[in-house]
Amino acid sequence: MLWLDGDLVAPSAARIDPADRGLLLGDGLFETMRAVAGRVPLLDRHLARLRAGAEELGIPVPYDDVAIAAASAAVLAADRLADAALRLTLTRGPGPRGLPPPPAPRPTLLLAAFPLPSPPLPARAILATVTRRNERSPLLRLKTLSYLDSLLALREAQGRGADEALLLNTAGRLACATTANLFLIEPDGRLATPPPSEGVLPGITRGLIIELADELGVACVEEPLPPARLRSAAGTFLTGSLAGIRPLLAVDDWTVGAGEPHPLALRLQAAWRTRLGIA
Amino acid sequence: MLWLDGDLVAPSAARIDPADRGLLLGDGLFETMRAVAGRVPLLDRHLARLRAGAEELGIPVPYDDVAIAAASAAVLAADRLADAALRLTLTRGPGPRGLPPPPAPRPTLLLAAFPLPSPPLPARAILATVTRRNERSPLLRLKTLSYLDSLLALREAQGRGADEALLLNTAGRLACATTANLFLIEPDGRLATPPPSEGVLPGITRGLIIELADELGVACVEEPLPPARLRSAAGTFLTGSLAGIRPLLAVDDWTVGAGEPHPLALRLQAAWRTRLGIA
Repeated sequence: MLWLDGDLVAPSAARIDPADRGLLLGDGLFETMRAVAGRVPLLDRHLARLRAGAEELGIPVPYDDVAIAAASAAVLAADRLADAALRLTLTRGPGPRGLPPPPAPRPTLLLAAFPLPSPPLPARAILATVTRRNERSPLLRLKTLSYLDSLLALREAQGRGADEALLLNTAGRLACATTANLFLIEPDGRLATPPPSEGVLPGITRGLIIELADELGVACVEEPLPPARLRSAAGTFLTGSLAGIRPLLAVDDWTVGAGEPHPLALRLQAAWRTRLGIA
Repeated sequence: MLWLDGDLVAPSAARIDPADRGLLLGDGLFETMRAVAGRVPLLDRHLARLRAGAEELGIPVPYDDVAIAAASAAVLAADRLADAALRLTLTRGPGPRGLPPPPAPRPTLLLAAFPLPSPPLPARAILATVTRRNERSPLLRLKTLSYLDSLLALREAQGRGADEALLLNTAGRLACATTANLFLIEPDGRLATPPPSEGVLPGITRGLIIELADELGVACVEEPLPPARLRSAAGTFLTGSLAGIRPLLAVDDWTVGAGEPHPLALRLQAAWRTRLGIA
């Protein structure tokens, strides 16, 4: 079942208006969230990010957090899912032809639950050559509906026999993976990750991992990272809302660190599971 | 009436699947075309561009040109529109959750007609500061569903009392307007416009204007254009499929040329009208 604009409906009965600006112009935002035992432990953080992005784009959010939490619970219950992936999509809704938005938008809010994908294996990545992240656009720091650059990079990775792609920004520095943030583990044991100003989404799990590392006494530096930093790293991992941490073992023909998941990545993964209440 | 995946349907009955990747990931392309007297004079060029983009993205186009031409005629007839704007939208169709596309996509093809907007007045533009075009992504040369950067620039223009925005690329050179290509008229009477490699859509009207200029004995140079070239230009205009040519009279606080539509822009507009059969 889907939750669409206030109603729980069967997918076959759920209708998106062909004039929806989310479809026609990419005029919207989304969140992908992890449900654990029928709850969404980080819902408040996801909704805060969604509201900040919607404010920046001038899209009203037509439901309060309590209503969206109830909708999440209703979708999970209807689908008999406890541990699941939840996708929340917000668009500006239907509008007249053309770029200028309607003065009184009727936004679309869609919520759907999916079985949790299997935990991913540690990844072998490429540095994508097909495209670059645009750190000069504020949209790269929002979770908008535009994922074609990531799709191009993922296709390049698969064509080159890899699982994932790391994207550079237009300045040639490390940004992120196709749907995940990137962390390096330095030889001195600290963490490093690019700041949002590098064309990087401020991921919810990225932010949580920085906090959990701090609780473990591990500092994290947010700084621009040239690709050569991969060669001096002791380890590297990706972060995302569904899998938490995914170790990265190699990039192009370079084996990162010892070529196996770094002990700090495993400690942080355990801390993330505990924090979310994953058994 | 809309034409959706083979059927002519009323807008209230037309249903886009909430799992459509066009909505969820911006995974699709579109064309905006001008209909004249119930026909679409440049349909072949629009469909050639659509097919080239779909090939690059790996999206099958489920109908041949004859079928799409018949669908265009059917939509125009059903709406009793002769001179109109036609929007053709192609998406990869519904898919499972996540970025990887389904192995056997069922693309969505949507065609809708709209009354033609009033011919726009000559424009006063700003140089957008809020965002930049990413000439390092191949997607900027395709007409994808992602128009949020253009929307940000248009909002900035309106907030600063202008009609339009010119976008720079990440290298700081002139790219295009929010939904139109940009041409400069040089003091020696030649035309200049940025090439697609500058992060510019190869517009159908852009291409036609280059041909029509050639027929008038006017050369057009495709070359990177620093913003300072606006100050030395004798005139400048925008091109798009609905309006043809729209003169640009000022950019920021700079009056371009004589501050009125350049005679060459008016000659090219007349040639464009003749070529499309506009009375």
